Amino acid sequence: MMTATRSFEIVRVRGSAREKTTDRAVAEEPLEIRLHGRPFATIMRTPGADRELAAGFLLSERIVRSLDDIGTIEHCTDRRAPPESALQNVVNVTLTDESRLACALSERRQTTASASCGVCGRETIESLTADIAPIRSTLSMSGADVAMLPQRLRKAQRVFDETGGLHAAGLFAPDGRLVDVAEDVGRHNAVDKVIGGRLLRDELPLADRLLCVSGRTSFEIVQKAAVAGVPLVAAVSAPSSLAIDLANASGVTLVGFVRGDSFNIYTYPERIHER
Amino acid sequence: MMTATRSFEIVRVRGSAREKTTDRAVAEEPLEIRLHGRPFATIMRTPGADRELAAGFLLSERIVRSLDDIGTIEHCTDRRAPPESALQNVVNVTLTDESRLACALSERRQTTASASCGVCGRETIESLTADIAPIRSTLSMSGADVAMLPQRLRKAQRVFDETGGLHAAGLFAPDGRLVDVAEDVGRHNAVDKVIGGRLLRDELPLADRLLCVSGRTSFEIVQKAAVAGVPLVAAVSAPSSLAIDLANASGVTLVGFVRGDSFNIYTYPERIHER
Repeated sequence: MMTATRSFEIVRVRGSAREKTTDRAVAEEPLEIRLHGRPFATIMRTPGADRELAAGFLLSERIVRSLDDIGTIEHCTDRRAPPESALQNVVNVTLTDESRLACALSERRQTTASASCGVCGRETIESLTADIAPIRSTLSMSGADVAMLPQRLRKAQRVFDETGGLHAAGLFAPDGRLVDVAEDVGRHNAVDKVIGGRLLRDELPLADRLLCVSGRTSFEIVQKAAVAGVPLVAAVSAPSSLAIDLANASGVTLVGFVRGDSFNIYTYPERIHER
Repeated sequence: MMTATRSFEIVRVRGSAREKTTDRAVAEEPLEIRLHGRPFATIMRTPGADRELAAGFLLSERIVRSLDDIGTIEHCTDRRAPPESALQNVVNVTLTDESRLACALSERRQTTASASCGVCGRETIESLTADIAPIRSTLSMSGADVAMLPQRLRKAQRVFDETGGLHAAGLFAPDGRLVDVAEDVGRHNAVDKVIGGRLLRDELPLADRLLCVSGRTSFEIVQKAAVAGVPLVAAVSAPSSLAIDLANASGVTLVGFVRGDSFNIYTYPERIHER
């Protein structure tokens, strides 16, 4: 049984005070769903209730329509697939009518995509970061400016005020000035929009820009920032374990829970100075 | 230029008072990204900055690494693809090095998946609902019980208290009793877990159960509920336009902004009675 949280060493900032401490982050890991041993889909999820998740996912995808369609559904026990922990991230499903397997696999539309696909099919932090150039940036920013980011982002959200239904992503200069903002129902889309806009202006890598997002930080946000060379990601809410791991591996300073004059620094705190 | 919000007729409930009014919801529509005219990915997004979104998405997917790799990037103008509005939901991208196209299309891992893939490759509400049986349910629930759902769900969230980083989905009985709860970094995963658990107990369709989610309602939440036969979906925050459209088409009562003794009913208000 996996635990749903993991412990991390962080720097907690409250005004001008800094404290090294530990904090818990929600676990995020890839789950590979196989049909009769063949890879079907990889989902980023919090470990736990994996059989239920696989069943519900296959129902939503219309691969199964009732319990009668499911033969077995169990964690992979293929001993050729070390390490042990990885087996807990693979669920194999058999269909009662095996003749439907080919159909299910071909029905899998090749155009299917999520805006978070940077990880799909990759199982380790090493493979996630293999083709990401390490961040090279001398960006330095004051804690006071970090604390101001969410309210500056919030002020720039026009559609949110009307509907309350949007995520926002903002690109900022090191002095805390908002450079660009995008809103979207999908948090990853908002990030793609602001980074894509800079790509279209041929401004990558974004070594002197930082990214602030309105919600939580899952791995995909850090992946998108790292690919674009953004050295600092700040979020109003919590990061996932995989977001912290990826930030650590790719050289991104990751900040969370930016509220009032307080925030947590999960990785590379040296980019944030006291004043 | 598309607008980022749409107007809907709703029923606003405050305590025992009900009022018909209009409200705006954030627009959510599919964007199909094509490479040299061939379907590559479909993303659910809020219209606007589509070229930037496509560029950022292709960067994250490592299909392009700089502006040099992009030839053109523009909305589709193929007149064989009516209606006019649909063209605004298709962006075609050409790569400068066309020899990389086959590679890009084959690199597209077939195992790639999002937990929100119910829509992928489908462009209309009609195709979304084509294989969903219309909800048949006599479920009836009091407004007072609806108003209690979020706090009952919140009380059952164990990991959230520790990390602040989790979405929750709860299945409830018509009397407001919590039947099952799941937490996950992905809101759609939390829904898949509670519905998948019922599938594994052979309890579908869930005609006498309702679903409450901790955040916003995008179309995928409604799709998953509709596939499982759940007649009522309630959320703490806002629904997207496509969530409302899909709820309307599939017979799901959709409730949003459940806060204190107030909430909005977007579709099929007759399932919620005054006391």
